[in-house]
Amino acid sequence: MKLPGQEEFEASTASENAPAEQLDNGTGSEGPPDTGSRELAVPKNPLLFIQLNELLGWPQALEWRETGRWMLFEEKLEVGAGRWSTPHVPTLALPSLQKLRSLLAEGLVLLDCPAQSLLELVEQVTRVESLSPELRGQLQALLLQRPQHHIKTTGIQRWRGSPHPKEASHDEEAPLKEQRQNPLRQKLPPEAEAGAVLAGELGFLGQPLGAFVRLRDPVVLGPLTEVPLPSRFFCLLLGPPMLGRGYHEMGRAAAVLLSDPHFQRSARRASSHHDLLAALDSFLEEVTVLPPGRWDPTTRIPPPKCLPSQQKRSLSQLWGAKDPSVPCGAPAEDRHGRGPHAPNPELQRTGRLFGGLVQDVRRKASWYPSDFSDALHLQCVSTVLYIYLATVTNAITFGGLLGDATDGAQGVLESFLGTAAAGAAFCLMAGQPLTILSSTGPVLVFERLLYSFSRDHGLDYLPFRLWVGIWVATFCLVMVATEASVLVRYFTRFTEEGFCALISLIFIYDSVGKMLNLAHAYPIQRPGPAYGCLCEFLGPEGNESQWQKTRSKGTDDIISMHIKTSRFFPAVARKVLSDFASVLAILLGCGLDAFLGLATPKLMVPQEFKPTLSGRGWLVSPFRANPWWLSLAAVLPALLLSILIFMDQQITAVILHRAEYRLQKGAGFHLDLFCVAVLLLLTSALGLPWYVSATVISLAHMDSLRRESRACAPGEPPRFLGIREQRLTGLVVFVLTGVSIFLAPALKFIPMPVLYGIFLYMGVAALSSIQFTKRVQLLLMPAKHQPDLLLLRHVPLSRVHLFTAIQLACLGLLWTIKSTPAAIVFPLMLLGLVGVRKALEWVFSPQELLWLDELMPEEERSNPEKGLEPEHSFSGSDSEDSDLMYQPKAPEINISVN
Amino acid sequence: MKLPGQEEFEASTASENAPAEQLDNGTGSEGPPDTGSRELAVPKNPLLFIQLNELLGWPQALEWRETGRWMLFEEKLEVGAGRWSTPHVPTLALPSLQKLRSLLAEGLVLLDCPAQSLLELVEQVTRVESLSPELRGQLQALLLQRPQHHIKTTGIQRWRGSPHPKEASHDEEAPLKEQRQNPLRQKLPPEAEAGAVLAGELGFLGQPLGAFVRLRDPVVLGPLTEVPLPSRFFCLLLGPPMLGRGYHEMGRAAAVLLSDPHFQRSARRASSHHDLLAALDSFLEEVTVLPPGRWDPTTRIPPPKCLPSQQKRSLSQLWGAKDPSVPCGAPAEDRHGRGPHAPNPELQRTGRLFGGLVQDVRRKASWYPSDFSDALHLQCVSTVLYIYLATVTNAITFGGLLGDATDGAQGVLESFLGTAAAGAAFCLMAGQPLTILSSTGPVLVFERLLYSFSRDHGLDYLPFRLWVGIWVATFCLVMVATEASVLVRYFTRFTEEGFCALISLIFIYDSVGKMLNLAHAYPIQRPGPAYGCLCEFLGPEGNESQWQKTRSKGTDDIISMHIKTSRFFPAVARKVLSDFASVLAILLGCGLDAFLGLATPKLMVPQEFKPTLSGRGWLVSPFRANPWWLSLAAVLPALLLSILIFMDQQITAVILHRAEYRLQKGAGFHLDLFCVAVLLLLTSALGLPWYVSATVISLAHMDSLRRESRACAPGEPPRFLGIREQRLTGLVVFVLTGVSIFLAPALKFIPMPVLYGIFLYMGVAALSSIQFTKRVQLLLMPAKHQPDLLLLRHVPLSRVHLFTAIQLACLGLLWTIKSTPAAIVFPLMLLGLVGVRKALEWVFSPQELLWLDELMPEEERSNPEKGLEPEHSFSGSDSEDSDLMYQPKAPEINISVN
Repeated sequence: MKLPGQEEFEASTASENAPAEQLDNGTGSEGPPDTGSRELAVPKNPLLFIQLNELLGWPQALEWRETGRWMLFEEKLEVGAGRWSTPHVPTLALPSLQKLRSLLAEGLVLLDCPAQSLLELVEQVTRVESLSPELRGQLQALLLQRPQHHIKTTGIQRWRGSPHPKEASHDEEAPLKEQRQNPLRQKLPPEAEAGAVLAGELGFLGQPLGAFVRLRDPVVLGPLTEVPLPSRFFCLLLGPPMLGRGYHEMGRAAAVLLSDPHFQRSARRASSHHDLLAALDSFLEEVTVLPPGRWDPTTRIPPPKCLPSQQKRSLSQLWGAKDPSVPCGAPAEDRHGRGPHAPNPELQRTGRLFGGLVQDVRRKASWYPSDFSDALHLQCVSTVLYIYLATVTNAITFGGLLGDATDGAQGVLESFLGTAAAGAAFCLMAGQPLTILSSTGPVLVFERLLYSFSRDHGLDYLPFRLWVGIWVATFCLVMVATEASVLVRYFTRFTEEGFCALISLIFIYDSVGKMLNLAHAYPIQRPGPAYGCLCEFLGPEGNESQWQKTRSKGTDDIISMHIKTSRFFPAVARKVLSDFASVLAILLGCGLDAFLGLATPKLMVPQEFKPTLSGRGWLVSPFRANPWWLSLAAVLPALLLSILIFMDQQITAVILHRAEYRLQKGAGFHLDLFCVAVLLLLTSALGLPWYVSATVISLAHMDSLRRESRACAPGEPPRFLGIREQRLTGLVVFVLTGVSIFLAPALKFIPMPVLYGIFLYMGVAALSSIQFTKRVQLLLMPAKHQPDLLLLRHVPLSRVHLFTAIQLACLGLLWTIKSTPAAIVFPLMLLGLVGVRKALEWVFSPQELLWLDELMPEEERSNPEKGLEPEHSFSGSDSEDSDLMYQPKAPEINISVN
Repeated sequence: MKLPGQEEFEASTASENAPAEQLDNGTGSEGPPDTGSRELAVPKNPLLFIQLNELLGWPQALEWRETGRWMLFEEKLEVGAGRWSTPHVPTLALPSLQKLRSLLAEGLVLLDCPAQSLLELVEQVTRVESLSPELRGQLQALLLQRPQHHIKTTGIQRWRGSPHPKEASHDEEAPLKEQRQNPLRQKLPPEAEAGAVLAGELGFLGQPLGAFVRLRDPVVLGPLTEVPLPSRFFCLLLGPPMLGRGYHEMGRAAAVLLSDPHFQRSARRASSHHDLLAALDSFLEEVTVLPPGRWDPTTRIPPPKCLPSQQKRSLSQLWGAKDPSVPCGAPAEDRHGRGPHAPNPELQRTGRLFGGLVQDVRRKASWYPSDFSDALHLQCVSTVLYIYLATVTNAITFGGLLGDATDGAQGVLESFLGTAAAGAAFCLMAGQPLTILSSTGPVLVFERLLYSFSRDHGLDYLPFRLWVGIWVATFCLVMVATEASVLVRYFTRFTEEGFCALISLIFIYDSVGKMLNLAHAYPIQRPGPAYGCLCEFLGPEGNESQWQKTRSKGTDDIISMHIKTSRFFPAVARKVLSDFASVLAILLGCGLDAFLGLATPKLMVPQEFKPTLSGRGWLVSPFRANPWWLSLAAVLPALLLSILIFMDQQITAVILHRAEYRLQKGAGFHLDLFCVAVLLLLTSALGLPWYVSATVISLAHMDSLRRESRACAPGEPPRFLGIREQRLTGLVVFVLTGVSIFLAPALKFIPMPVLYGIFLYMGVAALSSIQFTKRVQLLLMPAKHQPDLLLLRHVPLSRVHLFTAIQLACLGLLWTIKSTPAAIVFPLMLLGLVGVRKALEWVFSPQELLWLDELMPEEERSNPEKGLEPEHSFSGSDSEDSDLMYQPKAPEINISVN
């Protein structure tokens, strides 16, 4: 069935197979190009929009109707409902693929057909020997009939196309208005091409007719496809009626085949019939087969969260073996080409005094101009709003708690002022401007201890605190000079999660405790005749605060957790609602409080712009009532606070610099610590709270700056492209926070229980998001019901439980110390976590630690191979989860609420 | 590679192919037999346990290790973790199946091999020409090596098998102790057989060696399989090292093939090499193919909720077309062979006076003895406990509410007494003893209206009520006589869901309203210096009740909804906790109330066994203060109440008799109504509440009596076998309820807010479980985010919305009427729903109504074809969801709490 001119077409393709094309990485063909590659010229393998037009109604009323379409996934036309199905993974029957293969093997294959219109194409395709002239005429008329598309215009869904079959007119090549108005057109990348599959039963044909056409120049084939894209491929599958829905299935098989990126590439380069069949065969070699008795073929599989890597497919085809390629979803390498477990070059010791700091300054200086120009994107506005709200909530809450804990030595005004000034300064100078400086739980706990100590010993708090600050700053500068920050490499997930769990528990314990205290302070009236006329000064609102708590927490919970991922309301409305969740929760709480007229304790806010503590100026005098030797004695608490500050700051920095976030501008661990030290000195002198990078808000900041690929094809999961690293959003946030000081008078309407509720929620959210919590849950689950976690595939359950038990014991010890008079040495114990982790190397194998935690620097060095790829044991050479194992194992701290 | 004796084996199989076997229905082979078929002899196609032993460690330390097993689904040995993976749908690569095919085509096939031990089998298998005697010896020794199994004994997981390769000893044929102790053995049906696949790389082989053996007499092959089952099949796949994990994948392919029920049957009957290859080919024809670019083959697919029907597979193989077979999960036919939309023979009019009642009595009489003998099962004990708790809760709650609404004219004591007496009598006499008689929402609403009316007009309530009861009973008897119950065929889902939604809304509205009233009656003290010494008699517990409500509801919610399906704790503990959820919630609420010493309003309980209303005997006198003509005027409310009782009773009966519950003993619509009428008369005379079948408790009763197949194979979904239809559980429940009257003194500790909380929960649970609610949610969802509901595949969205809007309008109208002084005619309006539904036939096509609702009798008759199978339009001949469309569309009323 070869045409006279076919050899020419086949020969002319040779020029297209440029060698450079052989090496393209395949990501371009996988999906629509991202913003990064959009600047390039038309890619070699543009996205293909494939449409199946079926011939229906034989023998009475023949008509073409679009019944399916494919970009990444399949969408089926639900004829009854008049809507497109949800996108799903296409499933095929093997025989339909085999029938397709034999039809293509015997059929007509036109490669680089020069047709410029549908008419020319139809003429070329019907020039088959087996057709009589009469049949040919009938077939041509049929192929030129306008198909019925299902075009969904916004809001209204209509059937497009002529209601009755219509003969082809001379202007049929021009795309129809309906096609041009198809909203799908705007979603597809401009360089997208179309592929049309025409299939159906045609009674007057004596034998099946198959044709595969690759057009030399893609051209819009009139009304053939619902989107007026230039068509590159055309596939015709007609024949006499057969059993089942044979041609429908064959048409689907052809469409699925064409939507496969590898087959597409091969089909674009094919120079003969045989190349095409070879491509089909290599497709068949890679298919996944589900057995008939265990899988219902009518099940629609929703699109997977991440697509298999095309590069991996190429490699596995070449070598037929395990490959070290980039896995799906999770980026395995950052700009240094580091794998997820490779050491950070910023954390190499230079050996010179302040060598790390100098390096940090140099590195960051080169990015400084771009730190402002990179912020020019609309997304940053939304980030500013979101993080501003989070920061203000945090400043209010911590300010309130601090005021509470220090009897007003510090308050909300100090909190706002300090947050704004320190935060803005940090954003301008720091090594990692994405971190948000804030009061954090551990520092708050320490400050509370310090205040109790000075109160119990009759000391003047603020001067004592100034000396502590001076010493802490000194120690931090020493740590900067000696490049102590390189030690953060020893902060593995074990330490991070222990720290995180402790903070969360403190949050939860404190907020619940506060609430119970309130209930105690404002006791519930016991009724009864004897007490019926009891006069109480305080009033019966104690239990109300408890109810208030439940309420505000519940609201917060519902708004932030549910809404963003729920199916209700359009995406924009959901995003806004979830961004404002915390503010909404506060407003709702305040509103209820005001509406019910409850006498809940409110935030203590000064009426004027002056320090909360009456009778002090802005500068803290260094001695006042304290003896002189207290300035030296402050060394001891300062030492402990330095450890705390170092750990709190650096753990946040380490989490932010995890390889999966693909930061491009590098870290500045030494510079960050330097900035923190300087700011500590200043805030101590001014009697403002101490600040350090806050993990949760910083992660939220980074998360809101994610760059993701636009989903063009239905069902396509967005791909993570990177983070907008810049200084402007943080700066603006803190400037706004500064301006908000003038809002202080309005803040006094906020009931404390509402703030406690938010804190409780933050604690629960952070606690529930770490892997440690998941492992604690495993302790309670029968093995049968445990989820299919990767670590459970690789580490014996008893070992997992042992690891969890050790972590629990550490946590219990830390908690006990925190609760005893020895609480002040608690930062030292926190550091002890690193030691415990080191000791675990005696208990667990590196393999197990790699799955349960991650490796420490020495282990990595001693296990260079094992460190990078787990399990080389003969029976465990498990290619099955090679993709999955690189997926982010980081403590996914929940960042939906500051 | 044929053995000399092979022809004999092949010939001897002919006798096994009895023609009767051709017709076996295939369900026996699909999974383990259920209790029903367990009484039969060894089935023709017993469950096959398939194990893959891999040869690992070439060339240094060769050993066999079990790396996978298959019953219904695949379980992979997680070597690192030393545990079995979660069961999952096996996925294969097509080339491994093809390689397997060619290896089998060239290899050795022994059908009906007479080997009696592993030794004999190994000798047979290694008698291949291509092997030198030396190689043969080596191979035999290797095959006799004891494999390492992973046997999970309860609690402790151990590696079984010899630590070092061991030469075969003469007693190696006896199953090992470890094998016998394998807990899997107890789970598998006694007639189960084993199949062993041995695969691996063996360097000293020059060419691949494939063998497939079917043993004539299945025999335990020593330590070959982890469970000491008689082996039927044996498959050997060895060869020189090849790329990738070729033999592993080929071994998996062989195991998956053997685990396929169709292939198993063919392999059992195969009389030659060719039969086997043909079976493999027909397996290949049925596989589902997933394209490589859109599906990651390493993804583990969890077992589907229902397996594809094997019968359907057979038919589709025979005819290659759509088939009318029984779908997966949902039973399409009941004992009458009725399809899900066919009319109920119990609802055919006889045309004689009391004809239906007589028929009902006859029908039920024949089942009467079995109604007691069928209850002799342990499951019934748990049912009694569960339903007893639900009934008691209901009696307490309704009693409390009724006492509240009638100013104590009826109370908890009456509620208990009436529930016990009426319920027990109904269980003994009724047509459908699975329904649980109880006070229901609508009747309660009516009774409340009646009380307000008689109070407002200065009437004596109980005598007036007696006359209403007399008239209602009369009307009901007339309805029984005229066989009015056949009209229930007009109660479609539209009516059921409208009714259900209304009841739920009343529940929610009432409980919230009651709670707000309480808060109003017990007002919150406003604090402040001016009111600081205000003396209040009632005390400040108003807000507490509100908080209490939140609390009890929350607890109830958490315990009942979460626990049963959560992964924590063993299944038994979860079942008990969820069964006791309502009682736990009540106890918790009462405990908190007592602990906090709150002055919440409590349930009013009489101190002695006498009517709640003081000064009346047990019998209500017919007139007392009322004028004589009131006995005639009572006709009007009685008419309305009759409609209400009829609808409430019959809608419950219709829901209980849905085809998907597969009830075997038939319905008794007329008999049920007769019993209700008699009981109504009695309870009116005694001044007890009125009773009618309660939907939610009855469904819970039925659900707790489900018979399900035991899951033998990991990952197997339990199959629904039917309901234990009997009278005993109901009877015992009500006897226990009667005994509980003596608990009445303890009931006075129950705070009313706790009961309101439970009612609120019941309302929300019932409302959220009906399809109507789902459709209301669709109104708020953008089309893109809508779930893949079947009805959305077949009905245009605008039509779905229209239907929902009409239902909402009806509900709004009903609600409005209920809230106006015209409330008393509300039952009439409820009946109006049927009329509205009838009118919808003018708006919607039968096709659409079939998906949105179901057909009414006339429509079914006029659309005999369409009624049974939706959509025969040319393009919609959609075999894709032929399985799904029969899945229960019933209002899945949530039955986790009474």
